[in-house]
Amino acid sequence: MTHYAYVNNKIVNFKNAKVHVEDRGLQFADSVYEVIAVLNNNLIDLNFHLKRLKFSLKELQIKYKFTRSSLNKIFLKLIKKNKTSNGIIYLQVTRGVQYREHKYEKNLSPTLIIYTRDKKFNLPGNKFKGVNTITYEDLRWKRRDIKTVNLLPNIIAANMAKKKKAYEAILIQNGKVTEGTSSNIWIIKKNKLITHPANSNILKGVTRTSLLKIINKTSLKLVQQSFTYRELLNADEVFLTSSGSFITPILKIDKIKINKGKIGNITLKLAEMYSKSCMNG
Amino acid sequence: MTHYAYVNNKIVNFKNAKVHVEDRGLQFADSVYEVIAVLNNNLIDLNFHLKRLKFSLKELQIKYKFTRSSLNKIFLKLIKKNKTSNGIIYLQVTRGVQYREHKYEKNLSPTLIIYTRDKKFNLPGNKFKGVNTITYEDLRWKRRDIKTVNLLPNIIAANMAKKKKAYEAILIQNGKVTEGTSSNIWIIKKNKLITHPANSNILKGVTRTSLLKIINKTSLKLVQQSFTYRELLNADEVFLTSSGSFITPILKIDKIKINKGKIGNITLKLAEMYSKSCMNG
Repeated sequence: MTHYAYVNNKIVNFKNAKVHVEDRGLQFADSVYEVIAVLNNNLIDLNFHLKRLKFSLKELQIKYKFTRSSLNKIFLKLIKKNKTSNGIIYLQVTRGVQYREHKYEKNLSPTLIIYTRDKKFNLPGNKFKGVNTITYEDLRWKRRDIKTVNLLPNIIAANMAKKKKAYEAILIQNGKVTEGTSSNIWIIKKNKLITHPANSNILKGVTRTSLLKIINKTSLKLVQQSFTYRELLNADEVFLTSSGSFITPILKIDKIKINKGKIGNITLKLAEMYSKSCMNG
Repeated sequence: MTHYAYVNNKIVNFKNAKVHVEDRGLQFADSVYEVIAVLNNNLIDLNFHLKRLKFSLKELQIKYKFTRSSLNKIFLKLIKKNKTSNGIIYLQVTRGVQYREHKYEKNLSPTLIIYTRDKKFNLPGNKFKGVNTITYEDLRWKRRDIKTVNLLPNIIAANMAKKKKAYEAILIQNGKVTEGTSSNIWIIKKNKLITHPANSNILKGVTRTSLLKIINKTSLKLVQQSFTYRELLNADEVFLTSSGSFITPILKIDKIKINKGKIGNITLKLAEMYSKSCMNG
C-alpha cells in the first residue's frame, strides 16, 4: 500500500505529498520521469533506468544531480515502508518552482517525487495473458526519445483504447508503427523479429534494451526498422514491452486476431527468458 | 502581489497553494489553462477566454462545468485580495487526481487553480517597445488548437530565445511560420496583413481574435494563410499578439532587422486601436 512518498528530501504521508501550483512540472510539463518495476523486492533494470534518467535530464538541462546509491537508498526505504514487494517505483523530477514564465531561471531547485505502488505483473506461467489493442494516430511531439511528462497525446490514445476495451493503443505515423502509448511494439515474421529503431520517433524502452541483449544470445534474426500497419496485421506474432508490462503478447489489433488469437511460441520463449533474467537479478 | 490563490473551492495562502503528486496535470500534462490580462482592473477579452476554455475542456473530455459569473466572482475576489490592478489571471483546470495510469477514470473531480500576478503591459505611448526574436523548429504535437499544458517544446524554444537575449521564438515547421511559443505572428507586406489560419497547427489566440474584429473595421487587406521564413524576413512590418503582450512589434528576427529596426506605422496604428478597445472595456 502506498502510505508514504518522498518529496523534496522528506518522507511524507502520501495524502500530503504535494507540489506547488507554480511547479513547472504542472504548468509546462517541464519534467522527466521513470517507472521501475519491483519484482520480489528486486529492482528490475535499475541501471538502465538511471542511465535514461540522466539522459532525459541532460537533454532538458534540468540540473538534478544524483548517485545510484542515494536514490537506491530512498527506493529501498519506500519499498519497506509501503511493503511493495511487487509493484513499481514512480520517480519524477521537475525543473522546480518559478513564477510562471516559459523561460526558466538557471538556478532552480528541481522537485523530486518518488513513491511506490503495488502491482501484479503479467509473467509466463499459468496466468500469462495476451492483450487486445487498437491503433491510433501518433499525435506526439518530435522528441519522444526523452522520457518527459509531455504525455497528453499518449493519454488521448490510451483512453481511446480503454473506450474500446483494449489494453494499449499502437501509434501510427504516416502509415508506420512507431510504438505504443507506454510500450514498444515488436512483430515476428518467419523467425525474424522487427522493432522500430531507437531514434527520436520512439522512447528507447528499458525492457526493449534488456530484451535486445537476450535476443543476442538466441538464433533469432533481429531487425531494427519501422514497419507498416499492414505488416503489423500480417505478422505471425506481435508483442509489446514495457517496464510495467514486461513482455506481453498482443492477440488482437483493431479487432483482427493475430496468430489466431493465441500466444505465439517465440513470444512465450522470449517472455520466459526475460522473466528468468529478472529473477536472477 | 500574489498573496492568495484559489485551489479547489478555497482561497489559500499562495505559498500553500498545492496539488497532489498524482494530479494528472503534473504526471501527464492532462490539463488546460488560460491567461487573462487585467488592465486597470478590467478583465480583457474575458468572453473569448471562457469560450476557448470551454472548447479545450470539451476536446479533452475534462468534465469541469463553470459559469461566467461564478468564475468572474473568484477573479474579482483575487484581484482585490492580491491588489492586481494591472496583471494577469492564471487559470488552470486539470483532469484531477487518480492512481497513476494513462487511462483515466470517468468521474474524476477536476482540480481548479486560479491566481493573479502583477504585470506591466507593453502599450502604445512613450515606452512602447519592439522586441528581438529568433526562429526555432516547431517540435510540438498535432493538436495545438487546444490550450493545454503540454508545453515542453514551447519551453525549449522560449529558452533558446532567452539564451540569445530574444523576447520570443518564432516556430518554423517545414519552412513555414506557425506561431510563437506563446503568441501569434503577423506580417505586413504592401498594406496586406498575413497571419496563419486558425487550424490545429496553431492556437487561436484571444488577442488574435479581437484584432481580427478591429481589422475588419479598417481598409487593411487581411489574408489568413501560412507564410515562409523568407516572407517573414522580407516583410515590411512584423508583430506578435498574445494576452500577455497585446500587440508587440517585432524589430529583429535571427539578428536581421525588420523595417530598419523601427516600429512600423501600421503596427503602431493597430496597437493603438487595440489598446483603445481594451480601455473601453
